[in-house]
Amino acid sequence: MQPPIIHGTTAEGFESVRTAFARAAQATGSDYAAQCCVYWRGHCAVDLWTGPQMKADTLLGAYSASKGAAHLVVARLVQDGALDLQQKVCHYWPAFAAEGKGELRLHELLAHRAGLVGSDQGFSLEELADDRIVAERLAVQRPFWRPGYAFGYHALVMGALSGEVVRRATGQSIQSLFDTWFKRGAEVDFHLGLSDVEEDRFLPTLPITMPPDRKPASARPCSLTDIAFNRHHPQSPAVWELPNYLQVRRMGSASLGGVASARGLARMYAVATMAVDGQEPLLDPRTQACFGQIQSAGHDLVLGNYKAFTSGFHATSSYYPLLGAGTFGHSGAGGQQAFADPRHAIAYGFTRRRPPFPAAAAPENDRLLDALYQSIGKLGH
Amino acid sequence: MQPPIIHGTTAEGFESVRTAFARAAQATGSDYAAQCCVYWRGHCAVDLWTGPQMKADTLLGAYSASKGAAHLVVARLVQDGALDLQQKVCHYWPAFAAEGKGELRLHELLAHRAGLVGSDQGFSLEELADDRIVAERLAVQRPFWRPGYAFGYHALVMGALSGEVVRRATGQSIQSLFDTWFKRGAEVDFHLGLSDVEEDRFLPTLPITMPPDRKPASARPCSLTDIAFNRHHPQSPAVWELPNYLQVRRMGSASLGGVASARGLARMYAVATMAVDGQEPLLDPRTQACFGQIQSAGHDLVLGNYKAFTSGFHATSSYYPLLGAGTFGHSGAGGQQAFADPRHAIAYGFTRRRPPFPAAAAPENDRLLDALYQSIGKLGH
Amino acid sequence: MQPPIIHGTTAEGFESVRTAFARAAQATGSDYAAQCCVYWRGHCAVDLWTGPQMKADTLLGAYSASKGAAHLVVARLVQDGALDLQQKVCHYWPAFAAEGKGELRLHELLAHRAGLVGSDQGFSLEELADDRIVAERLAVQRPFWRPGYAFGYHALVMGALSGEVVRRATGQSIQSLFDTWFKRGAEVDFHLGLSDVEEDRFLPTLPITMPPDRKPASARPCSLTDIAFNRHHPQSPAVWELPNYLQVRRMGSASLGGVASARGLARMYAVATMAVDGQEPLLDPRTQACFGQIQSAGHDLVLGNYKAFTSGFHATSSYYPLLGAGTFGHSGAGGQQAFADPRHAIAYGFTRRRPPFPAAAAPENDRLLDALYQSIGKLGH
Repeated sequence: MQPPIIHGTTAEGFESVRTAFARAAQATGSDYAAQCCVYWRGHCAVDLWTGPQMKADTLLGAYSASKGAAHLVVARLVQDGALDLQQKVCHYWPAFAAEGKGELRLHELLAHRAGLVGSDQGFSLEELADDRIVAERLAVQRPFWRPGYAFGYHALVMGALSGEVVRRATGQSIQSLFDTWFKRGAEVDFHLGLSDVEEDRFLPTLPITMPPDRKPASARPCSLTDIAFNRHHPQSPAVWELPNYLQVRRMGSASLGGVASARGLARMYAVATMAVDGQEPLLDPRTQACFGQIQSAGHDLVLGNYKAFTSGFHATSSYYPLLGAGTFGHSGAGGQQAFADPRHAIAYGFTRRRPPFPAAAAPENDRLLDALYQSIGKLGH
Repeated sequence: MQPPIIHGTTAEGFESVRTAFARAAQATGSDYAAQCCVYWRGHCAVDLWTGPQMKADTLLGAYSASKGAAHLVVARLVQDGALDLQQKVCHYWPAFAAEGKGELRLHELLAHRAGLVGSDQGFSLEELADDRIVAERLAVQRPFWRPGYAFGYHALVMGALSGEVVRRATGQSIQSLFDTWFKRGAEVDFHLGLSDVEEDRFLPTLPITMPPDRKPASARPCSLTDIAFNRHHPQSPAVWELPNYLQVRRMGSASLGGVASARGLARMYAVATMAVDGQEPLLDPRTQACFGQIQSAGHDLVLGNYKAFTSGFHATSSYYPLLGAGTFGHSGAGGQQAFADPRHAIAYGFTRRRPPFPAAAAPENDRLLDALYQSIGKLGH
Repeated sequence: MQPPIIHGTTAEGFESVRTAFARAAQATGSDYAAQCCVYWRGHCAVDLWTGPQMKADTLLGAYSASKGAAHLVVARLVQDGALDLQQKVCHYWPAFAAEGKGELRLHELLAHRAGLVGSDQGFSLEELADDRIVAERLAVQRPFWRPGYAFGYHALVMGALSGEVVRRATGQSIQSLFDTWFKRGAEVDFHLGLSDVEEDRFLPTLPITMPPDRKPASARPCSLTDIAFNRHHPQSPAVWELPNYLQVRRMGSASLGGVASARGLARMYAVATMAVDGQEPLLDPRTQACFGQIQSAGHDLVLGNYKAFTSGFHATSSYYPLLGAGTFGHSGAGGQQAFADPRHAIAYGFTRRRPPFPAAAAPENDRLLDALYQSIGKLGH
């Protein structure tokens, strides 16, 4: 095989990130296509892409990295006083109090403690694409665990729940506020609702490659995990296919419907946490610290392993020990990784065109982040 | 070795459960004796038994599957409004407030959060067999952990605690209410207190076979686990022997003293959750969902590994991913497994005459349930 | 290699502890130096030492075993009614309420639930040695997790936090109260603040031997674990070196600055929990039970593995199943182990001159405790 062609630039001192990116491309195979972008201290320090059809500004499904975009909006609203994390959810959204959810606080909802990971009936593709339908259905749903007593990843519905709170509190959707503050306000190439004019930059996700010996799923799946991933609905789409549906991209579900480049992912966290192009960060240090504080940590009832969440974000440093305490971000099932590490003045974005198996942050992020943090260590404090 | 003889019947489409049962018998040895019974959509779909002296209606010690029987009574009382899960335990039982237990709620008690897993002095066999003596002793006991802050399996005393609440709230024992609603009211062959006339159907448990290299127990055991299993009492009986004592069977301790066939186990959960023989289920869908909701999940302080409890039941689907969310049931140390899976309209019961090592739900339940759930998957929705 | 010389005595029936101690010395190498002391039922039953320069009354850095000394003082204050575990920390220490810590209770602080494991800026050696400076800095620090919702080891600061509460409530330092009740009052050779006259008995800790293949630390460490161990401060000393600094020994930080012999460690827990030399124990049975009750158990956010704490102590029996429920104590990074096991009437102390890797209770404690508990099992109840 030919050595892969790596496009783009790295600032002086970041060459080893390029090397790590090239190695990932070489190791993964000839159809490997990915992007990696890093901001350091307000400037773009890494801007790389590789693979067939991939360009610097190619847009890919962001999957759950969309939750990161949505919850940056929530963070800004908390900073502005429009939302209060200590409030009960039903203060903003009275119907939410049904079925024993009346005491749940907003910070608990954002930390995946509501127990509202799916609906008994499941969602059609059309329903899943529409945050308002999802929210309306979940308001009357009985939680799968005692609200607040445990936590589990609200994989497909988190953004619909937080989005409904935002809409009730502000009269605007998360999508619209994201557009105002991040997309238009700060030139962030992240789309919670992709417009017609941007469609030609979108590249569909390639099918996930399952291992051949994978155990077949239940004939009639309805475990807690099945319900959280909507596998119990008769027309349930595979998660990896979701952004390939036009209606999912158009609606821009705050849980999973975003579309972005790695540049968009990194810039989104950069403009939120550091001065970029002479603009103050959208979140002040106090708000950054607030949304970097761990809220739920331990056994995730949906995923069945150790997870750590802040208010609406992954506590990303729980998975990469080189990162600083207070790092907050969100990975995506397509292989995405994205976060802000305020202690190191880093904002990071990574995308891939074919999801890894299992569908989660791609394993090459480990080596990319090793190289990146060694680089900034050498460049000094 | 001769192939084992499998007695009984399976409905059309459930033949693979019989095959799995036969394989378990073949693999385990010539003295293997077991029963397996399944209700599906209101009808008995599997009714099998095998082994020396074993008959369709043989009664075996139910061990902790007794807690399932007891807490079906609690569920019905909650449905009827006679008990409120949100209430403080000391509302019903004032003496329980001693030693820092005054704030504990009934739902926390049922979710093994009280920290009251045993008594400092331990219990003689006579005391352990009598729920009222156990309850009286535990009312004045200091909890082993801060009540509500953690959970651990109340192996030998759970039913005494919940039973005392029932007695205080209703004036009747759990055993008596179970008889009325389940044994006499719905022909369930499960006995919380075996009468003289049924004694001839009882088969004593055979000794558990310990592995020869097992580490000897502490010379003076009093760890939290030792106390929960009453090993610190000088005349402590082995758990596997308990139902072999007449007084244990007679008293029918709600924690461990029940006696049942697999038919009894399965029918108990069937009549609770589905229409059987033209009778409405004893629990309405809302109550079934309430008692299927996870209350405690994570590290069990007594057992030292991952466990998940609903209010008084195992969240059985946490251990078998094919089962539906909301499944509730209770295994037993003799190898029993029993549960209701309302999403699949399944009620399941399994017994064995010799406990497996370690004493818990027998490993053959994994294959039996694989076969069962494949069967209903093929039979369709 | 010559067989190591083991000094000291064991009471009749405890010979196997001497054998286990000799085996540890033989296995570890020629510069092995350690002490082991045990009280049983009010009398010294094991009093052993070995190795170059080591004497019966040699004083070594106690590291986190200091927290045990400090929290015996807290336990006594609770017994006397001078402190109330249910009170909010800010009741005693108003400045503590900053940054969302206003609801935290004293029992939560002591159970490592405050989330206040370090300061954003880190501490110089001078600062770290001074509990009052540490406390002042942490009062204004934002917690790293939501207070009360999780727990993690407050490795270098726990005693400064509990000490400030003590100072505010009583007008005296933990160090001074420890001197009064334990060092002078009960002849305990444990020094929270070593005086000039005792300096000649102090032996510096030998360097910890790191495995050669150990992964290098982050170039700019600031993970939660890094912050808890103060690695993010530019002049951060290695933890193993701390007691070798004169100012650390002089100030006697309640988190890590104590100095003790094994005799001191064992006698400290003995006089707290049993009658020694005709004196009543400093803690009554109720207080012992209170401080032996588990408060936090599960995944420790700082250490990344399973831990169990009581109020200010390790729930030591969670790590050694032979020990009784209600055991409380504290290990130290230099290899120390020390605890009271009231159910077995045991008080135990162990020291080493060179810390093991990883820095924690030395592995030979496992064999020593096996031998010890077999001994008392044979000696009878």
